[in-house]
Amino acid sequence: MKGFSERALVSDVLNWLRQRTVSTGSEEVVAAELLGRILEDAVVAGIDVPSFDRSAMDGYAVQAESTDGASLYNPLSFLITGQALPGTPHSGSVDANTAVRIMTGAPVPDGATCVVPAEHATESDGQVEITQAVPIGRHIGKRGEDVVQGQRLLNAGRQLRPQDIALIGSLGLDRATVVRRPRVRLLITGDELVIPGQTKAAGQIFESNSLMLAGLVQRDGGELENPLPCEPVSDQRVVIAEMLTRPGADIILVSGGSSVGTEDHAPTLVSELGQLVFHGVAMRPSSPSGIGQVGDALVFLLPGNPVSCLCAYDIFAGEAIMRLGGRPAGWPYGRIQGVLDERIVSDIGRLDYCRVSITDSADPSISPLAISGASILSSTTRADGFVLVPADLEGYAAGTRVEAWRYDTPNNHPGELK
Amino acid sequence: MKGFSERALVSDVLNWLRQRTVSTGSEEVVAAELLGRILEDAVVAGIDVPSFDRSAMDGYAVQAESTDGASLYNPLSFLITGQALPGTPHSGSVDANTAVRIMTGAPVPDGATCVVPAEHATESDGQVEITQAVPIGRHIGKRGEDVVQGQRLLNAGRQLRPQDIALIGSLGLDRATVVRRPRVRLLITGDELVIPGQTKAAGQIFESNSLMLAGLVQRDGGELENPLPCEPVSDQRVVIAEMLTRPGADIILVSGGSSVGTEDHAPTLVSELGQLVFHGVAMRPSSPSGIGQVGDALVFLLPGNPVSCLCAYDIFAGEAIMRLGGRPAGWPYGRIQGVLDERIVSDIGRLDYCRVSITDSADPSISPLAISGASILSSTTRADGFVLVPADLEGYAAGTRVEAWRYDTPNNHPGELK
Repeated sequence: MKGFSERALVSDVLNWLRQRTVSTGSEEVVAAELLGRILEDAVVAGIDVPSFDRSAMDGYAVQAESTDGASLYNPLSFLITGQALPGTPHSGSVDANTAVRIMTGAPVPDGATCVVPAEHATESDGQVEITQAVPIGRHIGKRGEDVVQGQRLLNAGRQLRPQDIALIGSLGLDRATVVRRPRVRLLITGDELVIPGQTKAAGQIFESNSLMLAGLVQRDGGELENPLPCEPVSDQRVVIAEMLTRPGADIILVSGGSSVGTEDHAPTLVSELGQLVFHGVAMRPSSPSGIGQVGDALVFLLPGNPVSCLCAYDIFAGEAIMRLGGRPAGWPYGRIQGVLDERIVSDIGRLDYCRVSITDSADPSISPLAISGASILSSTTRADGFVLVPADLEGYAAGTRVEAWRYDTPNNHPGELK
Repeated sequence: MKGFSERALVSDVLNWLRQRTVSTGSEEVVAAELLGRILEDAVVAGIDVPSFDRSAMDGYAVQAESTDGASLYNPLSFLITGQALPGTPHSGSVDANTAVRIMTGAPVPDGATCVVPAEHATESDGQVEITQAVPIGRHIGKRGEDVVQGQRLLNAGRQLRPQDIALIGSLGLDRATVVRRPRVRLLITGDELVIPGQTKAAGQIFESNSLMLAGLVQRDGGELENPLPCEPVSDQRVVIAEMLTRPGADIILVSGGSSVGTEDHAPTLVSELGQLVFHGVAMRPSSPSGIGQVGDALVFLLPGNPVSCLCAYDIFAGEAIMRLGGRPAGWPYGRIQGVLDERIVSDIGRLDYCRVSITDSADPSISPLAISGASILSSTTRADGFVLVPADLEGYAAGTRVEAWRYDTPNNHPGELK
């Protein structure tokens, strides 16, 4: 049992990670499952949309010149020769004296050059009286007005929004090629751990880090390999080694046993089976974190203490998952400014992740939580967010204006719409 | 075919909706599926967490008084009588002359009142030499230090974060009671519509609104009733009536056929089978929107034009789905300020939803898109977001500082961490 001899700087760990996390691989995904996925290839239109001239109004398709001079005082009369409905074109054509009744979205019949809206027309006995002159092209959506064949519509790397998926569908495509989601394996170690819902003996605790990590991985676009609930793995070298070397994972998140105690097999196994690049990071909590590689998998040794686990995930593993998945790295947390109402004490040389409460006001007041041990999971649920103290500061004095991160995803209410 | 005689104010529609959208019903959901769900009941701790005193360090459990005076120059020696591991308590007790080797997370044996960290101890021949005096309670996590039995941990209405789900798990619970997601039925009408991936004839277009709506419903926490791809429904009264009256939906989103043309069956059917409360809203696009009720279902008549469909969904239907699901209503859009580089023309008396491009700068420049017809789906994919012009303004002059909404969900990069 030895302490860490040296701790890596957070920025050095991130620089190393960023060089090793480039999205690899792609997959075809059906339209129904594309929300939030990242396009691997640009979407280029294979067809015009619409692929025909269509009416933009309910009304009458006529030759625009024939409406010259029409007004309420000078209604002009046309013979109705048919009807064009969406999906049911009119097969005939329109001449100077005829009109075709047409609905929004229906193909404009041959010969017609405008649509007179129903508001300016009165139909009776197979005739329609038109009371407004309408210029050429009016109320007609031209072929290709939305999308022209060959047009590049969505760039590679785009995170797909609901309207993007609709656009892909409007081209007749029922799927798209997107970046494959990184496959994430959870390796939860600890002989004291019991799955929630089961019976707990003396000295045991309910395993909960897997639930937090599963939610974080889902949030950040990773694909969890493990079925849930996640079976904890016993603190045995052979079991952990198998989980580290089994193919199929892009990322392995190891929770617990990351430190330098006799029961901490994971760090030695990572260095024996692959490369333990960093072990011990200059941050609090999470200083016993480690990062390495076994085969093709990036391995994150996350401390078993839940606050450390969350913090090390958010600072290192989450970014790696987002980058491997082709996403812009970042936190789905609200970024706010406010005034500290109590000081935060830190040490030069390490990054501090300090849970805070934040008042709901225009200029929020930010208070560090009193109970803040790395083992206190409830501190991350009582907290509204956190403040980061960089390594070159000893902390912040009370009254300092600081930046804080809110755990809740911003959802902005537009206020009273009128 | 008649125009709208009168258009409702957006604010009147919203006021009506807000009185009718209270979350109803709850369901038990397993922990693996709780992310983002809304708690129906507060979570109250049924147990202490941890349920025993545990070591916060790897080291040696001793009686604190016995370490008085220990230092590098005065190491004190203790007999090691056993070992406590996580999940494997030491059954004996500690006295003034003995120590128990202990790992982080292991139960502290009877008699021991502190843990001496491994860094300040040297073990050999069944003895440990301790070189630091350690006060009572140091490096011990007390029973209930995280959670005390009976404590209220999460309030009803909370949207569950990854750490919240872990906290629930740490209590031994494998599920929670959350607000039931509103069930949403899509009713996509239009004889011209073809499912993407199928073959399209002349005058037909690929159906895409269902893909957009499915994504929006998923985003806002609704549960889609329809399997995807969604089969369009023909413009026949009997078919639409069946879809409007079939039980099981909390919300019915009707796309297309919402206006006042002869093929627009939905509005008349809603008023015959239930109540068509609003038809025609003072906004652009989406003015042919309608809102009503059939049986227990709120019915939204969304125009078939894709931009109108998106806009009417976001302003009315999305809020209803969020409220029925117990969520705080709001848009997952970034709210920014910037300067308009061209004027936006609107009319007094209506709300305008104007798609814009937004530069990526600290003080962004905002440009209305030139092509902005309600039928141009690609305008919502080219746009970065939108500006709302309220009914009491005629628009905004170029150079005005305005608020805009970014379609992309904010994901904030913390920048260089150090």
